[in-house]
Amino acid sequence: MSSSNIKIRIPYGELSAMGPGKADLLDAIESSGSISAAARNLGMSYKRAWDLVDTMNRCFSQPLVSTATGGSHGGGAQVTEFGHAVLRRYRALVVKAEQSVAAELQELVTMLALSAAEK
Amino acid sequence: MSSSNIKIRIPYGELSAMGPGKADLLDAIESSGSISAAARNLGMSYKRAWDLVDTMNRCFSQPLVSTATGGSHGGGAQVTEFGHAVLRRYRALVVKAEQSVAAELQELVTMLALSAAEK
Repeated sequence: MSSSNIKIRIPYGELSAMGPGKADLLDAIESSGSISAAARNLGMSYKRAWDLVDTMNRCFSQPLVSTATGGSHGGGAQVTEFGHAVLRRYRALVVKAEQSVAAELQELVTMLALSAAEK
Repeated sequence: MSSSNIKIRIPYGELSAMGPGKADLLDAIESSGSISAAARNLGMSYKRAWDLVDTMNRCFSQPLVSTATGGSHGGGAQVTEFGHAVLRRYRALVVKAEQSVAAELQELVTMLALSAAEK
């Protein structure tokens, strides 16, 4: 789960192809093996999770999540090789952005009221 | 106004001391000379704008916005020297973060579906 102070989205026209919420959803699908379980783990509705997966799959040149047909709410889902590659690059990008401004962030923190500097 | 794909917040405990919305509000106060005009320009309620200003002023070691008393909805507001310093550092930090991952962002864009690459 990301609780970073830096949020980065990959735009696709007016849509967001990738962002913190979608990245977390990919992780949850990877670990649970289904969209419905992933949605439950993240406290979001199945419809919301499915919409996010659908958006990702349509925005990228290849699907990030493959779903097995059959059964209500699907017969399982997994993150594709391509999905893993996108997720890996996205996470690395966020880490690099964070590291690049760590010193500047710290300088701004010194301008905060004292009680925060102690936290 | 920021429409960046990178959003950075400066946390203060559970609060956000600075972020894209607050930075835009400071700009709007600077150019309009009052919180109510700034709120109107940004399409937010006066209460919302005032709450954001109050949060900023309480999170930092010095006020970012000074208000003149008198009159309903105040007799004008201005961004302090300290507020300018915080805003300048914050904007520079966002630009640096964007520049640091520009190449990586571009790599991810090449993985998007073709219609986006054409946009």
